[in-house]
Parts: sequence; structure tokens; C-alpha cells
Amino acid sequence: MATSELNSETTDKRRSRRIDRADHVRADPDAIAALMGDRAVLLRMDGIDPVITDDGRLVWGTLGDVDSGSELVFLGLDGDRGCFAAVPRAHEPGDARGKAWLAAGQLGREDFATFATARSLAHWHANHRYCARCGAMTVQGKGGWQRDCTDMQCRTPVFPRTDPVVIMTVEHVTDDGERRVLLGRGLNFPEGRYSALAGFIEPGETIEQAVAREVLEEAGLKVHSVRYSSSQAWPFPSQLMLACHAKTDHPSLAIDRTELADAFWVSRGDLFAAMENLPGKSFDPPPPHAIAHRLLREWLDRPTEEKF
Amino acid sequence: MATSELNSETTDKRRSRRIDRADHVRADPDAIAALMGDRAVLLRMDGIDPVITDDGRLVWGTLGDVDSGSELVFLGLDGDRGCFAAVPRAHEPGDARGKAWLAAGQLGREDFATFATARSLAHWHANHRYCARCGAMTVQGKGGWQRDCTDMQCRTPVFPRTDPVVIMTVEHVTDDGERRVLLGRGLNFPEGRYSALAGFIEPGETIEQAVAREVLEEAGLKVHSVRYSSSQAWPFPSQLMLACHAKTDHPSLAIDRTELADAFWVSRGDLFAAMENLPGKSFDPPPPHAIAHRLLREWLDRPTEEKF
Repeated sequence: MATSELNSETTDKRRSRRIDRADHVRADPDAIAALMGDRAVLLRMDGIDPVITDDGRLVWGTLGDVDSGSELVFLGLDGDRGCFAAVPRAHEPGDARGKAWLAAGQLGREDFATFATARSLAHWHANHRYCARCGAMTVQGKGGWQRDCTDMQCRTPVFPRTDPVVIMTVEHVTDDGERRVLLGRGLNFPEGRYSALAGFIEPGETIEQAVAREVLEEAGLKVHSVRYSSSQAWPFPSQLMLACHAKTDHPSLAIDRTELADAFWVSRGDLFAAMENLPGKSFDPPPPHAIAHRLLREWLDRPTEEKF
Repeated sequence: MATSELNSETTDKRRSRRIDRADHVRADPDAIAALMGDRAVLLRMDGIDPVITDDGRLVWGTLGDVDSGSELVFLGLDGDRGCFAAVPRAHEPGDARGKAWLAAGQLGREDFATFATARSLAHWHANHRYCARCGAMTVQGKGGWQRDCTDMQCRTPVFPRTDPVVIMTVEHVTDDGERRVLLGRGLNFPEGRYSALAGFIEPGETIEQAVAREVLEEAGLKVHSVRYSSSQAWPFPSQLMLACHAKTDHPSLAIDRTELADAFWVSRGDLFAAMENLPGKSFDPPPPHAIAHRLLREWLDRPTEEKF
């Protein structure tokens, strides 16, 4: 996208919206009501999947597009314009990956963040119509950033859920100094696809402990030197991916076949061939919009001699 | 604790247990049942608060100590011994900090991780007796690492929740080269206490975006150079603290008084006096077991000239 387009007010429909979450507005029902006027915009979604233009942008409509019975979530402000998303009464849980996952790869950074927020919130609302503490109905509060139990004895509030997940490279350096990285295949991966290992952080764990546990459980390796790299929102349905690099001194794999279909050590040359889609590549790497891709690119680009 | 004690099998009652979460056992009801024999141990808790020896260790009992009606959670294995915790049918939500928070400061690293896991799981079970999707009753599964809806049409599984929270130093360097750090007071802080700002990560955000949003919302500052430092499990009730350092070039504060009672810039000298409890200190820093303490210690110890 050219910078001139981004800065132009006249190309409103084509630019990606930079949305201020405007936390202070959420607790003010009058302010939210006032933002629901003619200037309000609605993120168009197909259930909880994105609707995307040919040139890879989210599509926005008006509040007149909302199906009756849908709840509205306040995404934030684009300037002084209220931005909303609709929560469908029900959506197919089966579409959790597939279309949305592919579409996510077409979106730029701002649009991906907006879509990720809307999709995670919509999924959360649709699955929290009842109070998990007492079983009574819940109602939306704070512009969609809270739900409240309607039982007057309980009244428990509940907030959108984000599940932290660790995803990591594991490096082993052979006796003759060759760096290799561990890649694995989840049980439901597409044919030929390999990626970094990953798993949910459990209560009581740090990032670094979760990395060590997951690699030990899934591949039988003891790791050290765990180093955080970067994070990514991943709305399938609502994860915070925490990407790390780790090392091991003992490369003998003991694969847990209930978790992984396969895992193997990959040389820099073989990873380069896969990442660059060269003839003779031996596997498909994770797609560019997945944080695993960035993590593997970092590992590949780091000079062999560099310590971390 | 002396190393000889840690390594001695004869001081079983006094050592801190190093618990293997033994994920593979959870899905095997027969294995869990077999682990519930005479050798099983139960983490003693007062509701969801810890019970601690005079020398700062967790106390373990037997499964005979479990109140009838309590659910058992499988914490993992200490060697071949099953370690469990009991979920009280109800506990006072009001004890969320106070006693448990103070007690946590007495525990070593291993014991804190064990207590954090047990407390977070117990709180989660007690608040998830019903399915948030359909309102039906739920039952425990996988040794307490899952609950399942009992409605045969719904059958939605739900997993323990961990809420990621960012906590951060913000640094400003004055025109004459003095480094200062931003500290704030939450609305419910003890008298005199100041700490690092913090806030929940929202759906759709990265760690780095959440740091920038929280500091802008609470203190009116635009930050850059956000750098992850470390993480900590914080079981009040179930948070993953993600500690970061950030910088700002424009130090004018605009404090959101709905979030913070106060915030101010602190010099290295004043922070040192507070952390070392020197005479004339101007505030109380966060306690040593809080990750904010570690973060402020890192900031203090970093030489002025070092870039990050």
C-alpha cells in the first residue's frame, strides 16, 4: 500500500483502520450509544470469519448490516468514529481454522489485529452466554469487554479469555559444528507441513518452564537457554503466541505420538530450501503469517558463531 | 536450605517436592486411581490459601485428610508418588490476596510453583461448576486439568484459564542524562507502596502492544523499545505476569485516576533507597517475591550507558 493512500481521508473505504481501543469509553454506556450513530462502522464478518477485499483489506459496513438478535461489541475508535463488530447468536465451531486461517495471511498488521480482536471476542461471547460459577444467564457489559451474571446472589463478572501458548525452536549443534533445528508435525497438519513445537502454558508455569516441559513431553529433549523472541495474537480462537528460542545438548528424540505425528532435526540448508520454496525441498514450512515462520527465519539468519 | 537436605531421602517431610506434571498420566483414569494409594500425598491448604511450615515450606498430608465432597486434582508425580490437591466446594473470594499473598513470599521457587498451580486450579474448578456455553453442570476430567459439560448435545470441554498480564518499567532520561523510572500506586495498594504499572493483555494484542496501550491509558505516555525480561506465575487467581522494560522520550504524565491513585518519576538514588530500605526512603517498593521487584532491581543495576 502506498503511503499516500494511508494518509488520505478520501480513500476511507480502502485504507486499513488504525483503531484506538478507547478503554475509557467502554464503561460509559451513553458514550457508546452516542457512537452508534450514522458515522459508526461495522466490521463485516462471515460468522466469525473475515470478509476481505481482493487487495487484502477488511471490509466495513454500517450498523444497518447487523442481523437482528446479534450483540454488538465496541472495538474502539477510528478518529471520532465508533467501530463495532457483531456477535452471531451461533457460529459453527468447525470453522475454527480453514477459511479464517488462510484469510488471516492476506491481512496487513493493523487489519490482522482488528480481525483477531473481533474474532476472539465474538467466539468468547458466543461461548459465555451462561455463568460458569452458577449456571444463570449472563448479559454483555462494558461495550462487549465483560459479561455479568444475571443472578442477583452471584453477579460474577467474566472477562474475555486469552490463552498463552509457547512456540519454540530447539537448536542442537553437532560435534562437527553444524546447527540443526527441531521441527515437528501436529496430528492434524496438512500433508508435508512441519513447524515449531508449541503448547499451552499451564497454571503455575513461567514461559521458560512451559517451553522446557513441552519439549520434554513431546520430543523427550531437555532444553536450556530459553530466550523470548516475540509474541503474536492468534485468534483460533484466542491465543497469545509467545515465541522463544531454546537449545539442547542431547539430540536423541523420544516422540510422543499422541501429540506429534513426527519430528526431526533439520539443517540450515534444508530449512533454507523449504523457506525459499526451492526445488528439492523436503517439507513445507509454516506460512509467512504464522509466528513460527518468523521464528524459523530468525534462527536461519543468525550467524552460527553468535551466542545467545 | 543446605544441599545435603535437598538430596536426602530421609528428610522427606522437610524437603520441597519437585513435581513432574506428568501430562501423560492425566488422560489415564486407571493410572490416576493407582496413584491414589497409601503413598499418595495431599497438598494441605486452608481453603485456597497455603499452609506453610515455620521454615517456609509447603505442608503435605495424605488423601485421608480430604474433606468429603471435595474434588481431587492431580498435581503430578514426585518420583513414583502421586501428588494431589483438594478443591473446596466453596471458598471465600475475599481471600484472594492478603494471607495467600504474604505467605507466597515465604516459599522457595519450587514450592511457589506447586502452590501457584494448586491455587489457580482450585479457584478455576470452584468457578466452573457450570458450562458457560449452555448452563448445564460440568464434571471434572483428566485428573482435574479439564471439565466437561454433562449435556449430551453440548459436551463442551473447558480447560484451566491463565490470564496474561504485562508489567513494565518505563524509563525516561532527562536532558542532563539522569535516568528515571515511572512508578505508580494502584487504587487498593497498601499505604506508601509504589510499583510498576501493569494490566491484562486483551484479545488481539501482542505483549509489546499491550505494554504501549497500558502505559498510554494509565499515564498518558508513548513508549518505545519494549523489551521482554522474564515471566512469573501469579496465582491471584491465575495470572501469567510478563515483565518488560520500555522507554519514553516525553515524560509529561496524564494520570488516569480511575486506574491509578498516583504515579511519579523516581531517580536511581531514590529507588535504591527504597529497595534497600534506607533511612529517608520516600516510598515502599514492591515485595521481593513480586516480579515487579525483580524488574526494578534489573533497571537499577543496569549501567546508565547501556543501550537496549
